[in-house]
Parts: sequence; C-alpha cells; structure tokens
Amino acid sequence: MDIEHMHQRVKEQLAADRYEHTMRVTETAIELAKRFNVNVEEVKVAALLHDYAKNIDEQELKKYIIKFNLPEELLAYHAELWHGPVASKLVEEQFNINNEAILRAIYYHTTGRAQMGPVELVVFLADYIEPGRNFPAVHGVREEAKQDLSLAVRSALKHTIIFLLTKDATIHPDTFLAYNYLTKITGVK
Amino acid sequence: MDIEHMHQRVKEQLAADRYEHTMRVTETAIELAKRFNVNVEEVKVAALLHDYAKNIDEQELKKYIIKFNLPEELLAYHAELWHGPVASKLVEEQFNINNEAILRAIYYHTTGRAQMGPVELVVFLADYIEPGRNFPAVHGVREEAKQDLSLAVRSALKHTIIFLLTKDATIHPDTFLAYNYLTKITGVK
Repeated sequence: MDIEHMHQRVKEQLAADRYEHTMRVTETAIELAKRFNVNVEEVKVAALLHDYAKNIDEQELKKYIIKFNLPEELLAYHAELWHGPVASKLVEEQFNINNEAILRAIYYHTTGRAQMGPVELVVFLADYIEPGRNFPAVHGVREEAKQDLSLAVRSALKHTIIFLLTKDATIHPDTFLAYNYLTKITGVK
Repeated sequence: MDIEHMHQRVKEQLAADRYEHTMRVTETAIELAKRFNVNVEEVKVAALLHDYAKNIDEQELKKYIIKFNLPEELLAYHAELWHGPVASKLVEEQFNINNEAILRAIYYHTTGRAQMGPVELVVFLADYIEPGRNFPAVHGVREEAKQDLSLAVRSALKHTIIFLLTKDATIHPDTFLAYNYLTKITGVK
C-alpha cells in the first residue's frame, strides 16, 4: 500500500475543509493507536481513507450502493450514513485494499457496529474528537479518550444517540447495537 | 373470555400497589381505545393482564423463559424486561387466550417493537401515562395522547431511551426498532 499515492488521491477527491478534517483525524487516530496499542499502519490507512466518499453527491452514492450490492436498507436511513460503506468499496477497488480491519473501520466509521474491533474503535473515536470538533459532548469524550478506548467510544455513541433523539431522527440499528455491545463489555451496566 | 374471573385472578396474583396500577392502566387504556377507535374488548383484556407476571421473582421468571422457549437473549437484558413475555405465555395457558393482538400487547408492553399494532400501542401508552405516573416526560406525552396515538408512543419511547442512556443501561433492540418504526410512519423525520 503506497500511502503517499493514497494521500494524493484523497487530496484530489475531497474539498479543502474535508481534507483538513481528514488530516486531523489521521493524526488523532495515530496518537490513539499508539496510546492503546493498536496497529498504527492499519489505523493510518483507515483514517486517511475514511471520508474518501464524503464529497460524492447523494445520487451518485445511491448508485454505488446498488452497484456494490451494499444493503439497500441503507437507503431508508439518512444519506449521511452512506459515504462510509461506499468508501470501503471504492478503496477496496481503487487501492486494492483487502485488509478487513481497515475496510471495516471505513465502512462503520459513522454508525459503529456491535463487536467493533480496535482499528474501528480508534478511527470512530478520532473522527469524533479530532481537534476541529467543538460541541458540548466532545470535551468529556476527549478526557475519556486519554484513559479507555471502549468507554470513550461508548460515550461518543451515547451522545450521538441522544443528539439524534432530540432531533427526532431515526437511528441506524448498528449504532444502538454498538452502544449495547460496548455497554456490555465495559460492564457499565 | 370471562373477564370477571380474570380480574379476580389478577387481584390474587398481584401486590396491592401493582393491582391498583393495573386498574388505572385498564381505565386509561379503555379511554384511549375509544378515542382512537381501537377494539375496546381486546384492549381491556390486554391491559388487565399486562402485569400478570410482575410479582413473580427473577429466578421463577428465568425458569418460565426457558420452559416457554422464549428467546434466551432476554436473559442478557435487564430483568425488568422479562415479565411481559412471561405473562403473555401464562395467560395463554391459564385463560386460553389465543388472540394475537392481546398476547402481543402483553408481550411487548415494556419494550415495544417495530410494527406495533393498535392494541399494543394503546396498552403501551396507557402503562406510560396512567394517572399514577409522575415523571418529567409524562406530562408532554399525556398531552400528545389526546391527539395522536403513534406520536405519543413515539415520544414515550424516545424518553425511555434517553432515560436508559443517562443511566448507562443497555437498551433492548425492540425498543429502538419501535422508535425507528414510529418515527418513520409518523414522518417525524
């Protein structure tokens, strides 16, 4: 995997603000990976590519969901949830990535899922707490991220669910299942 | 179905405060059924029997879950979620009830589920807003219950999920599937 080549392609693919966000996520993810003993190379690639499909418009994303045989159920949820699954297929195709940990971290970086692995947890968390993020819940999660990877992701999911509930939005089942899973394994209750 | 006989059995089965709660739920449910054109006879029986297993202790409930071949996954969630499914099986057996609308309303009165039917919605809502209930969210839901059955249940589910999240508890999948379902059909978002 030629990371410099991927980096260039990401830069071409994304709007400037999105590219900068991606750089901050990558930096944060590498830091978290070192802190929690997660494979830094996998994390770096997954973080760099997590938003690869973010600037593709909805109509195009819809076509990719059908082309790649992604679950059509996705279309019943908010379009914000489409770019992760599509990106995982695009990078598999365009960069010949077949590392499951990387592909899953990209696929599930917006919703999470039950049984999230370490690379998924790190990318999910980095995307939530990167230094450009500034919403009330982020400060507490940043603090937790210094101590415990699973607990910090669990808090991020919890605040995301509360945020969606207060907006009267639907919530993708994977998000709830991720919350339940981490609540069980961290023994919070 | 001999309702007077059921009534007697419910009274014998439940502690005094639980019996009084049941009476208030039944009265509230009948009122809601009339308001929203739902089968009053089915609602009356389901409401009367919804907490039939509420005063059975956890060990006993666990045995019933296994005896009745109820999903063992239930045991991974809070014991508060066990009495509905167990009651639906007990009343089927003891009162020869085979009306699916009634049995489902009893089974799902704590969690809700996707595709809840009208009797289920009424019993779920009555249990949430009966006049003995007094918690911050109940007042708004009581107001909604004057206008729209599905919207009121949706709000009850939303507040239940927020309550569980703030307690750091797990959430039964049926509860968020119910929330998503009602959010979709009411077109809230």
